[in-house]
Amino acid sequence: MSKYSDIRDAAYEANMQLPKLNLVLFTFGNVSAADRDLGVFAIKPSGVPYKDLTPDDMVIVDFEGVTVKGKMRPSSDTLTHAVLYKHWEKIGGIVHTHSTYATAWAQAQRDIPNYGTTHADYTTVDIPCAPPMSDEMIQGDYEYQTGFQIMNCLQEKGYSYEEVEMMLVGNHAPFTWGKTANKAVHNSAVLETIAHMAYLSEQIRPNNPRLQDSLIKKHFERKHGPNSYYGQ
Amino acid sequence: MSKYSDIRDAAYEANMQLPKLNLVLFTFGNVSAADRDLGVFAIKPSGVPYKDLTPDDMVIVDFEGVTVKGKMRPSSDTLTHAVLYKHWEKIGGIVHTHSTYATAWAQAQRDIPNYGTTHADYTTVDIPCAPPMSDEMIQGDYEYQTGFQIMNCLQEKGYSYEEVEMMLVGNHAPFTWGKTANKAVHNSAVLETIAHMAYLSEQIRPNNPRLQDSLIKKHFERKHGPNSYYGQ
Amino acid sequence: MSKYSDIRDAAYEANMQLPKLNLVLFTFGNVSAADRDLGVFAIKPSGVPYKDLTPDDMVIVDFEGVTVKGKMRPSSDTLTHAVLYKHWEKIGGIVHTHSTYATAWAQAQRDIPNYGTTHADYTTVDIPCAPPMSDEMIQGDYEYQTGFQIMNCLQEKGYSYEEVEMMLVGNHAPFTWGKTANKAVHNSAVLETIAHMAYLSEQIRPNNPRLQDSLIKKHFERKHGPNSYYGQ
Amino acid sequence: MSKYSDIRDAAYEANMQLPKLNLVLFTFGNVSAADRDLGVFAIKPSGVPYKDLTPDDMVIVDFEGVTVKGKMRPSSDTLTHAVLYKHWEKIGGIVHTHSTYATAWAQAQRDIPNYGTTHADYTTVDIPCAPPMSDEMIQGDYEYQTGFQIMNCLQEKGYSYEEVEMMLVGNHAPFTWGKTANKAVHNSAVLETIAHMAYLSEQIRPNNPRLQDSLIKKHFERKHGPNSYYGQ
Repeated sequence: MSKYSDIRDAAYEANMQLPKLNLVLFTFGNVSAADRDLGVFAIKPSGVPYKDLTPDDMVIVDFEGVTVKGKMRPSSDTLTHAVLYKHWEKIGGIVHTHSTYATAWAQAQRDIPNYGTTHADYTTVDIPCAPPMSDEMIQGDYEYQTGFQIMNCLQEKGYSYEEVEMMLVGNHAPFTWGKTANKAVHNSAVLETIAHMAYLSEQIRPNNPRLQDSLIKKHFERKHGPNSYYGQ
Repeated sequence: MSKYSDIRDAAYEANMQLPKLNLVLFTFGNVSAADRDLGVFAIKPSGVPYKDLTPDDMVIVDFEGVTVKGKMRPSSDTLTHAVLYKHWEKIGGIVHTHSTYATAWAQAQRDIPNYGTTHADYTTVDIPCAPPMSDEMIQGDYEYQTGFQIMNCLQEKGYSYEEVEMMLVGNHAPFTWGKTANKAVHNSAVLETIAHMAYLSEQIRPNNPRLQDSLIKKHFERKHGPNSYYGQ
Repeated sequence: MSKYSDIRDAAYEANMQLPKLNLVLFTFGNVSAADRDLGVFAIKPSGVPYKDLTPDDMVIVDFEGVTVKGKMRPSSDTLTHAVLYKHWEKIGGIVHTHSTYATAWAQAQRDIPNYGTTHADYTTVDIPCAPPMSDEMIQGDYEYQTGFQIMNCLQEKGYSYEEVEMMLVGNHAPFTWGKTANKAVHNSAVLETIAHMAYLSEQIRPNNPRLQDSLIKKHFERKHGPNSYYGQ
Repeated sequence: MSKYSDIRDAAYEANMQLPKLNLVLFTFGNVSAADRDLGVFAIKPSGVPYKDLTPDDMVIVDFEGVTVKGKMRPSSDTLTHAVLYKHWEKIGGIVHTHSTYATAWAQAQRDIPNYGTTHADYTTVDIPCAPPMSDEMIQGDYEYQTGFQIMNCLQEKGYSYEEVEMMLVGNHAPFTWGKTANKAVHNSAVLETIAHMAYLSEQIRPNNPRLQDSLIKKHFERKHGPNSYYGQ
């Protein structure tokens, strides 16, 4: 039994949730699960349909993006995952999808405004949309630079990756993360729902106002504050 | 066999309908079922996924919001349910969801206009959206105040909770109720459909007019009036 | 074996297709199947959930709307069916639903413009939306008058019920018909798709133009003309 | 065992994917699979519901549109397939559907703008919408002319059918193709997703700008360029 079996299974299980949650078409999307002690993560192989996937297909990669173990080529987005794991020490899982509503906002290069408590239950701020990358970054080491684009956007806005676990990359699609691969998948599904609702609210009421601060704070803190009282 | 087994089972069955009717994602949403003679209600435990739920997980709470029986912490929205049961003596079930279309209207802080007979089959008036709560109410006993916000909104509009069994809370999401938990779930699904149709009608025809009074009355009364002739 | 068993089974099978085709929520909607020789039709009982329905629950009604056989009360829309069967001698099935997109157009009191070949495969004209009924008609024998509202609308526009097998009743919802109950259900599903696409096309291009006449004619006639060559 | 069994099975399997991918209602849509050595293709019979389809129902047709083998009449769109196979020597499969979002764009007679990497993963240009055909073409050999309308549109825009494997025909619906029937079906599903996202992006941000050239090139080439690194 491999020392990687825990993250291999976690990555496999989390990847298999994406089609069940209607977050992916065909092979679009990938999930990884990291082992902080071993300094590696397990990630989906590139271009393999979910129905053909087995736990053994997961590829083990280190935080520089070098494959440590695996018969297949890892996801083409592997370097983005590697950069984020390297710099954000407390995350254990990352998800990338092209889910319909979140991607539509990314294509429109807009942050998703905080319009309701469903959103505020997850973050106090608008879901940030990183600007599209410069031609230089794109023509360079694209997937590696995508990781930096994500990190720089959060930093410029002054947000911590522990507070804001979901983001859009302009003209591209969403990325989410969390303490585990499972939590990152959870965040992807929530982001898709938030994106759908925000789109509808703007159609129902053009120039829809954001949520008042006290309600944002209340909802975020009842789930995440020091005195949170949601869940068991 | 517990004296609470009837409401425990009713609450469990009604909660399990929410994912089947596509009204909830993950643990969002909760249903309760009341026993008027015993002065208590059974409610979903907080943050437990529907697939893991069992009838025994339901928590028994009195109308002051105090847990009477149960191993788990009740829904974080329990106090809202308690307030409504205490003041509205004829209801036997309450549902709270974040269903997509109804929540989009709540986020837009708009009443849902009565645009057709699907709506008029359930209520003669627009589905009211309570204004977002004041900072004071939010920072105070939030879930308790949510109950009052719902009651005050109905009262100000001069509606009875027996006539109008569904409502939006501004910037938050829908609440529905009824004589049984089952009927309250039914109302949640209907509200989601009404919210979807009203959104579409406004897109298809901006400044869409309301339904004429005679048609509203006809449809409401054929289902709910003294001479109703719908059903068996 | 009853002489009504053919239409009883046809009505049952056709009713059971409605939830499978996502055209109804709960008990909304009803299908009937007529026997022209016997001068009766079989129709869904009022307010019975589809999952509980059995062939024996179908109610046999004559073209005056009088129940001939059956343990249950027929659909509350029975008189509308009776009027149409009485006056349109070549139809064998009728469907009424509150399907989401078609109902949204009915609520907007708009004809559905003929925007593409999917529509032209079924009819050369816009799908008519009958105006909402007068207060007098509504307060009178409502379901009976609904039948006349449908017939009058077609007649005023100069359409035959054999050419146009689908319609909206303003502020209410769609009705479809056909030579059999099965074909009427087919038309309901097609109408919902046409309504969805027409809505989207108007969003994608405001003031979207109708289809050119030659293309309408071509598509309608390859399916329905004397030299049709679609199907086996 | 027939020499046509390979394309017969390929066409059958590919046709059966259409309802699973929610790309067709009833009998709408058809897939064909070609054998270049034999100079024929297998195609769905006209108007047969997918649930009743068997591999033996596929009709074998040559590139002039003449049936070579088969008990049933081939799809009414057979001549369109024949024209494309005859002129585009490297394609092995063609799909025609009336999928909702792609058809809505076709009805609006608009190219689908390249708004994001999901689109750029498949083509560098906007998805072309051929103008509606002239009255003459429509009244002539309609399905044959539809093939020429598709080819002419690509040619006028200067695109190769190997680079652009999907298109809309104005006022009608989408056509896609590829090296195999399977790949053509894949393209139909992707086109529907792209059409959905582009529609949403324009709603979220009117006058939404296209993707920058460097990002289009990057995404297209990582999947299709000489140094592609997507997949195994």
